[in-house]
Amino acid sequence: MVVKIYGMTPAVCPQRVMHCLIEKGVEFEIIHVDLEKGEHKTPEYMTKQPFGQVPYIVDGDFELFESRAIVRYYAAKYAGRGPNLLGRTLEEKARMDMWLDVEAINLNPLVFPIVFNLFVLPGQGVAGNMAEAQASAEKLDKVLEVHERQLSKTKYLAGDEFTLADLTHIPALRYVVENCGMPHLISNKKHVKAWWADITSRPAWKKVMDMVESRALKYSP
Amino acid sequence: MVVKIYGMTPAVCPQRVMHCLIEKGVEFEIIHVDLEKGEHKTPEYMTKQPFGQVPYIVDGDFELFESRAIVRYYAAKYAGRGPNLLGRTLEEKARMDMWLDVEAINLNPLVFPIVFNLFVLPGQGVAGNMAEAQASAEKLDKVLEVHERQLSKTKYLAGDEFTLADLTHIPALRYVVENCGMPHLISNKKHVKAWWADITSRPAWKKVMDMVESRALKYSP
Repeated sequence: MVVKIYGMTPAVCPQRVMHCLIEKGVEFEIIHVDLEKGEHKTPEYMTKQPFGQVPYIVDGDFELFESRAIVRYYAAKYAGRGPNLLGRTLEEKARMDMWLDVEAINLNPLVFPIVFNLFVLPGQGVAGNMAEAQASAEKLDKVLEVHERQLSKTKYLAGDEFTLADLTHIPALRYVVENCGMPHLISNKKHVKAWWADITSRPAWKKVMDMVESRALKYSP
Repeated sequence: MVVKIYGMTPAVCPQRVMHCLIEKGVEFEIIHVDLEKGEHKTPEYMTKQPFGQVPYIVDGDFELFESRAIVRYYAAKYAGRGPNLLGRTLEEKARMDMWLDVEAINLNPLVFPIVFNLFVLPGQGVAGNMAEAQASAEKLDKVLEVHERQLSKTKYLAGDEFTLADLTHIPALRYVVENCGMPHLISNKKHVKAWWADITSRPAWKKVMDMVESRALKYSP
């Protein structure tokens, strides 16, 4: 059964799911939902994702939304193949959950105003609110200093193996680094910089970027 | 080994952890951290919880922060005793994760401005921003309409059993209902109202409220 991801490939949260499925070698296709046309806010769409966000997935008769719940599901379902992603003991798993929540709760809300004001609005020919973007960037810098301290002790956020905690950080931070003129937030921190080079050079993430670039909508391992 | 929860009992996130531990019959004590005195922002505290938030836990030589990661850890560690809390299949577990993330990402950020402006600031003799509180309440009402649709189909958010997804909703929503003059957000929705009456009457949650009321700092099953 091919997993269907409803969303669009340039969007952050679908990329999180794509990355996880490629790490695990799971076939999928993207059912394109055009955010610029508001297709995620139609009544039909919102019967599946009631908050009008992307993505949701359909896997046989199983449906799910919230990208972080989706990657947790596939990491557990395919625990025996590909990289572990979850942590190997209850304590490693708990540290993975902790850093995954740090991303969702402490980091991601700061990324949105940066990307919106410095990339999305300018892309539509509208001036962004630079003060709002700058204020969020200063807070994000402080959050990444916490990451720096952790990464001075362990190679990855939850320990010595790459897990979902690292994976979930990539898509939104990539926009800050590559599209918002703020690579220094990463490059001025020794351990964060090495971590970022490592996790973004994973073949599975490069494949996500290839699919975005080439507008491919299907993946087979 | 008695679990130590660093935090204060009136605070929402420590309550989430207390509730989970009581459901599972796990002994704990609260190490009081006075938020009004800023004890969560001292350099010593922030070596343990680097974002200056409560709670963090110490369990022997294991330490963890982020309340939702902590409850996931104890629900898994004590999976064999007390209520299940996690879901019994991968798919039930995934729906639990999904609704837990709905709480963290879609609901909780709306609760904060309501409680801050209508309860915290007035408690300090400062006028809250009523317009901001009202705007958040209108958005929260729409989020709870999504809950209403789910709860018209299943008794609890993730299915027919009480899980962490329900548990994590209680502490913050209780402030909205009981301290911000907005019980109608719950009481005007038939299924949400019945769910709320059910989950807040659980003995473990009542014990949390007893501990807050009596300023108790220790729990033994």
